[in-house]
Amino acid sequence: MAYSSIEELKLRYEGLRRPFRESIILNPLQTGGRLTEAAKSALMEFGDGYSVCDHCKGRLDTIVSPPVADFVYQDLPTFLDADTVRIMHGAREGKFLVMHAMTSPGDTILVDRNRHYSTDVAAERSGLKIVKVDNSGGIERRINVEDYIPLIKEHKPKLILLTYPDGNYGNLPDAKRLGEIAQEFEVPYLLNAAYAMGRMPLSLKEIGADFMVGSGHKSMASAGPIGVLALRKKWEEQLFAVSPNYKTKEVECLGCTVRGVPLMTLMASFPSIVERVKHWPEEVEKAQWFSKQLEDLGLQQLGEKPHLHDLMMFDTDLFYQISLVHPKKRAFLYDGLKAKGVSGLKHGLTQSMKISTYGTPKVDLEKVLDAFKEMIVPYAHLRK
Amino acid sequence: MAYSSIEELKLRYEGLRRPFRESIILNPLQTGGRLTEAAKSALMEFGDGYSVCDHCKGRLDTIVSPPVADFVYQDLPTFLDADTVRIMHGAREGKFLVMHAMTSPGDTILVDRNRHYSTDVAAERSGLKIVKVDNSGGIERRINVEDYIPLIKEHKPKLILLTYPDGNYGNLPDAKRLGEIAQEFEVPYLLNAAYAMGRMPLSLKEIGADFMVGSGHKSMASAGPIGVLALRKKWEEQLFAVSPNYKTKEVECLGCTVRGVPLMTLMASFPSIVERVKHWPEEVEKAQWFSKQLEDLGLQQLGEKPHLHDLMMFDTDLFYQISLVHPKKRAFLYDGLKAKGVSGLKHGLTQSMKISTYGTPKVDLEKVLDAFKEMIVPYAHLRK
Repeated sequence: MAYSSIEELKLRYEGLRRPFRESIILNPLQTGGRLTEAAKSALMEFGDGYSVCDHCKGRLDTIVSPPVADFVYQDLPTFLDADTVRIMHGAREGKFLVMHAMTSPGDTILVDRNRHYSTDVAAERSGLKIVKVDNSGGIERRINVEDYIPLIKEHKPKLILLTYPDGNYGNLPDAKRLGEIAQEFEVPYLLNAAYAMGRMPLSLKEIGADFMVGSGHKSMASAGPIGVLALRKKWEEQLFAVSPNYKTKEVECLGCTVRGVPLMTLMASFPSIVERVKHWPEEVEKAQWFSKQLEDLGLQQLGEKPHLHDLMMFDTDLFYQISLVHPKKRAFLYDGLKAKGVSGLKHGLTQSMKISTYGTPKVDLEKVLDAFKEMIVPYAHLRK
Repeated sequence: MAYSSIEELKLRYEGLRRPFRESIILNPLQTGGRLTEAAKSALMEFGDGYSVCDHCKGRLDTIVSPPVADFVYQDLPTFLDADTVRIMHGAREGKFLVMHAMTSPGDTILVDRNRHYSTDVAAERSGLKIVKVDNSGGIERRINVEDYIPLIKEHKPKLILLTYPDGNYGNLPDAKRLGEIAQEFEVPYLLNAAYAMGRMPLSLKEIGADFMVGSGHKSMASAGPIGVLALRKKWEEQLFAVSPNYKTKEVECLGCTVRGVPLMTLMASFPSIVERVKHWPEEVEKAQWFSKQLEDLGLQQLGEKPHLHDLMMFDTDLFYQISLVHPKKRAFLYDGLKAKGVSGLKHGLTQSMKISTYGTPKVDLEKVLDAFKEMIVPYAHLRK
């Protein structure tokens, strides 16, 4: 169990390198979190622990230099069209905060079948019962938000949650229609926008949600861990009650949340984020083009079509067929991509693969397609 | 409210600089969190969001490359003499996790009077009643751990907490004796070691605590936010129950905790941390020397004497007397230190000041003393 020397530890930990740093990345977890140059500078500038807090007067989000207060109380709410914003450790911590503050153990919440697992663990940590709104099944697995209505009537949930888009198929359900439903039935509505906020335009008020969470490391060009919780003013008091003995400290935030450099990277990347969401239609077009190329090679895209998000899942039965006859067996896919400088697929073979084209130049995606072609064309006869 | 252009945002956020980066730092929050060179490299290497997760197979702390699993399941437990370790977002998040998992709303916990405010907000977030063990008052404000006994008998707390050392006076109460008391009365014992873990030698088992939390950004040469929770095996099941539907995901951790680069800085600094705690006696000696120099100038050190930690509080009545006659009034202290390249005191004057000498070379501390001398000597007649 024990290490025997400092030298052993130095060998193990001091030279940590990331082999994929120069790769073309396909992993949907990673494409939206790549740092901007400004964020890289901020990383070096504020790397030392608690260096954000040089001028703190009692709470992180009131710091004026660096301009955290401007960011949290002015620019982020403007960007998200929300009344109030708080910095979280990530989207899941935002979901937990909302659930913990808005419900009591034993309450029921309504979630979509396509949700991220962290929605479940956040609900379980809050002692909640989870009722699921199913998807359409089949290839598209759509969430029809009208299906929330009978379940709201039946279960009287304390909160409804929608994942927009989900992290498997990249489906974008009708979040705005669910906003109308939530208002009609007067049930608080939480939108998990971890794959939307920072990638595509997003307005809390236009959607009609009460709460919205995003992820800096997933979609806002930030170092992790960091997330954003945006909300309507009406819930401020319930969510952010202060400690009776420490009048500046919000109990649900444990006083201060992200006490460190991820916040500085989020702030440094923010101008680029505001700019890049304007180019969302180009990202969607690129994703659709990429999907068509892969389908032409014999891989079926799952989820909604036409696809409206860069996150896509493909059925990989063809890869399975190839693996049965390929000399490298199940390793052929991962190795084949790696040899071309492409990373982000899981090791081994799974029944499907998830790919994101976000922020990746078309010239790099062409290289990815070439790699797939080289692997598939010799085995094209295996296509069903 | 709204920003009017991307250009405006670029000016505000893209060139974030830390003015104190080259200063001699006195702020106790910051002296133990300065990065090692290895941590700075890790910062650049793993800055991109979710880059830690290139080879994830389902949970952060089981990642083999980079060697997170070795770190969490082998080397950190060895270092802390604990059975089990988990990575937290910070010490306070560790305290909340323990409280949330070990108690029910309405339960009572026992804490020391010198605790950090985040102990209170963590307890309040868990719906707990807080009973306080008082300190001795006077100049030393010691916590006598024997005072826990009558309050344990009276209130039957579900958890007792001790702050070791506290963040105001840097007092180190008899944590080991409290371990015996906790075992005698069979009450779980949580040690807040945010200013100890990574600075001084620390053994969970020798102290006899059930849980121990530390802070990477405060005392382990890490970028924030990151913390450590160490515990005894007997509590593993209660704290880290997995989700019924996701068998690798621990509910209290919301699946994965620090999904990003602070974990890489903690790992990269770990060999230096293991090394530096061996030099703790030299740090204590330096703190005592520094304290004596300041006392010779007329500032009274509060808290335990002889002082056994680098975090120290000084009564600053003399500064108040000086401010009454100094041309710069209350700004003389902050400005005087800043002019000498010293940072880390609060703006304006307070009744006391907190200083840490941790990791600061003696030659730099001499410069600090010179700065104090220049400010005090012309007004030495104001000493009481």
